Amino acid sequence: MCYTGGMDSEKTIRQIETALAELLPSPEGEAAALHAAMRWAVEGGGKRVRPLVCLAAAEAVGGAADDALMPACAIELLHSYTLVHDDLPAMDNDTERRGRPSVWAKFGEDTAILAGDALQALAFVALAKTPVSCPGVRAGLLSILGEAAVGVVRGQAAELAGSKDVAYVYRHKTADLFVAAARMGATAGGGTAAQVERLGTFALHLGLAFQHEDDLLDGDSPLGRVEAECQVREHTDAALAALDGLPGDTSFLASLAARLATRKA
Amino acid sequence: MCYTGGMDSEKTIRQIETALAELLPSPEGEAAALHAAMRWAVEGGGKRVRPLVCLAAAEAVGGAADDALMPACAIELLHSYTLVHDDLPAMDNDTERRGRPSVWAKFGEDTAILAGDALQALAFVALAKTPVSCPGVRAGLLSILGEAAVGVVRGQAAELAGSKDVAYVYRHKTADLFVAAARMGATAGGGTAAQVERLGTFALHLGLAFQHEDDLLDGDSPLGRVEAECQVREHTDAALAALDGLPGDTSFLASLAARLATRKA
Repeated sequence: MCYTGGMDSEKTIRQIETALAELLPSPEGEAAALHAAMRWAVEGGGKRVRPLVCLAAAEAVGGAADDALMPACAIELLHSYTLVHDDLPAMDNDTERRGRPSVWAKFGEDTAILAGDALQALAFVALAKTPVSCPGVRAGLLSILGEAAVGVVRGQAAELAGSKDVAYVYRHKTADLFVAAARMGATAGGGTAAQVERLGTFALHLGLAFQHEDDLLDGDSPLGRVEAECQVREHTDAALAALDGLPGDTSFLASLAARLATRKA
Repeated sequence: MCYTGGMDSEKTIRQIETALAELLPSPEGEAAALHAAMRWAVEGGGKRVRPLVCLAAAEAVGGAADDALMPACAIELLHSYTLVHDDLPAMDNDTERRGRPSVWAKFGEDTAILAGDALQALAFVALAKTPVSCPGVRAGLLSILGEAAVGVVRGQAAELAGSKDVAYVYRHKTADLFVAAARMGATAGGGTAAQVERLGTFALHLGLAFQHEDDLLDGDSPLGRVEAECQVREHTDAALAALDGLPGDTSFLASLAARLATRKA
């Protein structure tokens, strides 16, 4: 994907990936296989949409993207762990992820369980490493990430239990991490409580549009094609509306919302 | 077990269990099975040794045990999640835990994976709820818990990989959570950096004595009976020595170390 806007997304993605590589343990020592599996999970590519949202949210409130680099890594580590556990035989039983063997297929089921566990822990280590100017900021970040980390599991559990409440499942399974990304970015960027909420609303609708678009691309929307297309449009519009009146540069987030709604993969 | 010392341990355990019950989600709604599995994992008893260490460490530096209640819950939630994942078929394949069905045996493998994941997340939510007087305290707690959460997985992975480095495996697999419990308690209780380190040293030796005693009780020490007994004695002595010179009441921790070294179960 190519984005227009204030941030140079290629350069920003490289910056995120460098920071992730520094956070991840090197694949050596007594726990070498674990460390290799953790790296395999995170270095497998992906669009890095959530960390980009986090950095752009810091800019949207008038802060610097750099202030949100550790929270951006945290949300990507958390997202990565959920994929590792989702792919397990007892869950979706996927042997491939992004054109490569999934973590359990390559490293074994036991190591994959542990790698997911350690990636979740590492997300919170990244938060501990966030430089903050105001002491309340870290408390805010921890609260946001902790609640999202519980929420995303809740969404997966509801889906697993065959919940018919699509709104509940999508809100938690998918949107919770987008919302946390945006709220953490706005918090780290020095946003007011109202601005943090505004960006949370943006990300909620972005996440829901993203999930409905995913269903359309996979051809398996539980709502049917017409209703899913309607949901994508409505949530994209609501996301864009939430950006009105923010003090910083919102062009990246606006372009992201527009692009996600019309993506082809 | 019955402890003597400043804290009334029966009353303190009830206080910890009440706080845990309030943190855990109620078993209803779309994710009811997940919530029930989380409660099953935490409410299955256990000696609550790690949270007791956390509270007693706050007292040992002259603080109030109550200041460390949320960190104490956090360490017990983290410990509980590791047991849920340890018992999985791909790991130790245990169908029982403390005389009851293990989480996966009762709720299924998929729900057990998710319950462990959510319990780890909830540990960090508990940290977010810790009332702190000084802003640096939460940053300290987060750093300690995050590093321990990575460390404990590292220890399990090393053991899984057949590491012959018993000291490395025990240091991480077992002692890391004891160390985090003591350091978080001392931090929340307002201890100085030197006091926090002192209690970390105490807990490192306590954890190692605990693990070697466990091996002796199970009759499967990798070091052999005589060497394991020697390790229990040496680490107990080192733990007790680390308590010298602390400003608060250390009688509970001292009695705990003495009891753990001579326990029968």
